[in-house]
Amino acid sequence: MARASNDANLRINSERLWDSLMTLAEIGATPRGGVCRLAGSELDGQARDLFRRWCEAEGCSVTVDPVGNMFARRPGENPARDAVATGSHIDSQPTGGKFDGAYGVLAGLEVLRTLNERDIRTEAPIEVCVWTNEEGARFPPAMMGSGVYAGVLDLDEMLERRDHDGESLGDSLDKIGYRGDAPMGRSFGAFFEAHIEQGPILEREHKRIGIVQGVQGLRWYDISVTGAEAHAGPTPMDMRRDALAGAAALATATLAMARDTGPDARATVGEWRTFPGSRNTVPGRIEMTLDMRHPKLDTLRAMDAALREAALALAEEHRVDIAIECIWESAPVEFDGECVAAVREGARRAELPARDIVSGAGHDAVYISRLAPTAMVFVPCEGGVSHNESEAATAEDCAAGCDVLFHAMLERAGIAS
Amino acid sequence: MARASNDANLRINSERLWDSLMTLAEIGATPRGGVCRLAGSELDGQARDLFRRWCEAEGCSVTVDPVGNMFARRPGENPARDAVATGSHIDSQPTGGKFDGAYGVLAGLEVLRTLNERDIRTEAPIEVCVWTNEEGARFPPAMMGSGVYAGVLDLDEMLERRDHDGESLGDSLDKIGYRGDAPMGRSFGAFFEAHIEQGPILEREHKRIGIVQGVQGLRWYDISVTGAEAHAGPTPMDMRRDALAGAAALATATLAMARDTGPDARATVGEWRTFPGSRNTVPGRIEMTLDMRHPKLDTLRAMDAALREAALALAEEHRVDIAIECIWESAPVEFDGECVAAVREGARRAELPARDIVSGAGHDAVYISRLAPTAMVFVPCEGGVSHNESEAATAEDCAAGCDVLFHAMLERAGIAS
Repeated sequence: MARASNDANLRINSERLWDSLMTLAEIGATPRGGVCRLAGSELDGQARDLFRRWCEAEGCSVTVDPVGNMFARRPGENPARDAVATGSHIDSQPTGGKFDGAYGVLAGLEVLRTLNERDIRTEAPIEVCVWTNEEGARFPPAMMGSGVYAGVLDLDEMLERRDHDGESLGDSLDKIGYRGDAPMGRSFGAFFEAHIEQGPILEREHKRIGIVQGVQGLRWYDISVTGAEAHAGPTPMDMRRDALAGAAALATATLAMARDTGPDARATVGEWRTFPGSRNTVPGRIEMTLDMRHPKLDTLRAMDAALREAALALAEEHRVDIAIECIWESAPVEFDGECVAAVREGARRAELPARDIVSGAGHDAVYISRLAPTAMVFVPCEGGVSHNESEAATAEDCAAGCDVLFHAMLERAGIAS
Repeated sequence: MARASNDANLRINSERLWDSLMTLAEIGATPRGGVCRLAGSELDGQARDLFRRWCEAEGCSVTVDPVGNMFARRPGENPARDAVATGSHIDSQPTGGKFDGAYGVLAGLEVLRTLNERDIRTEAPIEVCVWTNEEGARFPPAMMGSGVYAGVLDLDEMLERRDHDGESLGDSLDKIGYRGDAPMGRSFGAFFEAHIEQGPILEREHKRIGIVQGVQGLRWYDISVTGAEAHAGPTPMDMRRDALAGAAALATATLAMARDTGPDARATVGEWRTFPGSRNTVPGRIEMTLDMRHPKLDTLRAMDAALREAALALAEEHRVDIAIECIWESAPVEFDGECVAAVREGARRAELPARDIVSGAGHDAVYISRLAPTAMVFVPCEGGVSHNESEAATAEDCAAGCDVLFHAMLERAGIAS
């Protein structure tokens, strides 16, 4: 069995993985086929209990850190080595799906089960992590548990974050019994996160594996366009200071600029408020948001410059004032070359059609990449839909991603001879 | 005195007109210098009482019709002739100004006073009208009293219109004592309405008189752009069905089309709602309004066609559905050639810089033009601002417009020899 990792035919148990996914999805199941399992809720506790029982049944020790992150550990032959870890989250959006997060955790569990079933011993320990409150839906911000673990977010501050009813995350973790004292900030020999793509690219291109190169950098803007209210009838077009005309032109120009920047660029105007919002009044002010993303920091900066240049020209053309405020910036993340190579090699061994991809959404792997060599494995989801009760992925694709995860982790952990 | 109307130096009393404007503006005066005098309110009643007293002091009889329209009549030498009439309204917007409507009524009163002061007898009777509820702010629709008078709106239906507290217009008129039985639908020998421009053109061009040719035709549209919601991060630009991109492009194209159609064309996107309205979600649907105006019906129809053509092209380009519904249409109004000529001649006699203009807003004169030869006189207002407590016009401009009204009415009424 010791040469199993070199066996391209070695596969995880697809049916077992799918059964676990469906069993976990019963906890917080919604009538429309989704999941509502908010971080720190009683349902989150039930899901954690189930994960703990499953892991303990595999002989793993399960520890919990002060922000509720869970670590199921399978010992390695060489205790001096850092664990090779995987994982994701089991909290969900209020109207979330069965796969976002849960897939990455249960793919890790399936790796443990396959190792045990085949009696494969690894040099490095293997860990499966459940990161607390990745969604941030009940207690903002998102990716909280991994952020605290990586030292980016402050533990005490995060434990004091309160939901709409005034309950703190700390109290909610106490209630469900998931506030522990395991050390935070430990490094890993490698960290892999398997996840549904949450986008349409793999499905469109009939690829079953996304070899995630990194995560897009992101800038969030609040944009305010100010002109002058005027009557829709008597005011000639050339005497207007039409805030909507300026805002529509800026949105059009910015979306076109993103298209022209290349396939990895994104621009989204998601919110738009019109003042005064009267049918026969030329709008005096528009407030809109802009979300711009690109995997390369230089390009993201160039997009920012292009946005501001367009705004200057359009402000003059439409005789309006345009104020652009960048309210949040997240630098692009480039994953570890060797870990990415391990994912690529795993897909090659399992003979799965794969492509390089950049994650458009944030994941726990972003924060963990600050501590450890990290990469991610994506599998397709139906229509690219996520954060939605209709989120769907096939058993075959889930198994494919888990096979890749299995091979990549084994390669990095090393098989004990 | 009988040749007074041929005397180019004959002027109304500017100071007396201004005093009356300021006195009327005290009824319903707001702290910010505007007026709140809603139709049928106690304040409307007080304003009507004042107007009645002023007219009776000039020896006029004052009658009231079933929808509350008031008619102050100064007899003519030839009782067989239809009255030459003028007037406007004294109800206001909730945060309205001192001049919108009130100016037209008090300019008519000033004509009566000047005729009396100079002992000028006219062939045709002279009437000054107060049309009920022009604003429609408390009881929609706008231009209600003149609409009922002209037979376009149904009397009983309008009397049953209720405000937010459930009070009907009929009851409110009873309360203030302005529900009468004077006949409706009588024609006039001519009808003139003096009004502030409610737009910026006269002020910009340093003209003191607008010779109103007619009123713009208007179409109101509800436009719905439907695409598909998607995540702002993972979804490539070329795979989106971004409703906002489609809507912004359609707004931009339509506003540009109006600009290109010529100086009399107008297009305004006044309302805009974005769904779901989340910063990092590509909008799946935009609902927006469009207000298009032009004084020529053919051109308005061509603008409609251009709108629909642009929508077809942009729907394809952005892979969205665009539904365009015309929810209201008001045909352009062309005023009576002889009445317009009388206004032009009045401006010439008074040696006032004048220009032809088209009204962008509706006025009582629109409905009255169905019964009688009609024209309007515009005077500048500061910054083109109206429907606003800061609405302002100068005493000199108010007097100039009243001089023109005086000459035009005299020309049409004929001086008794």
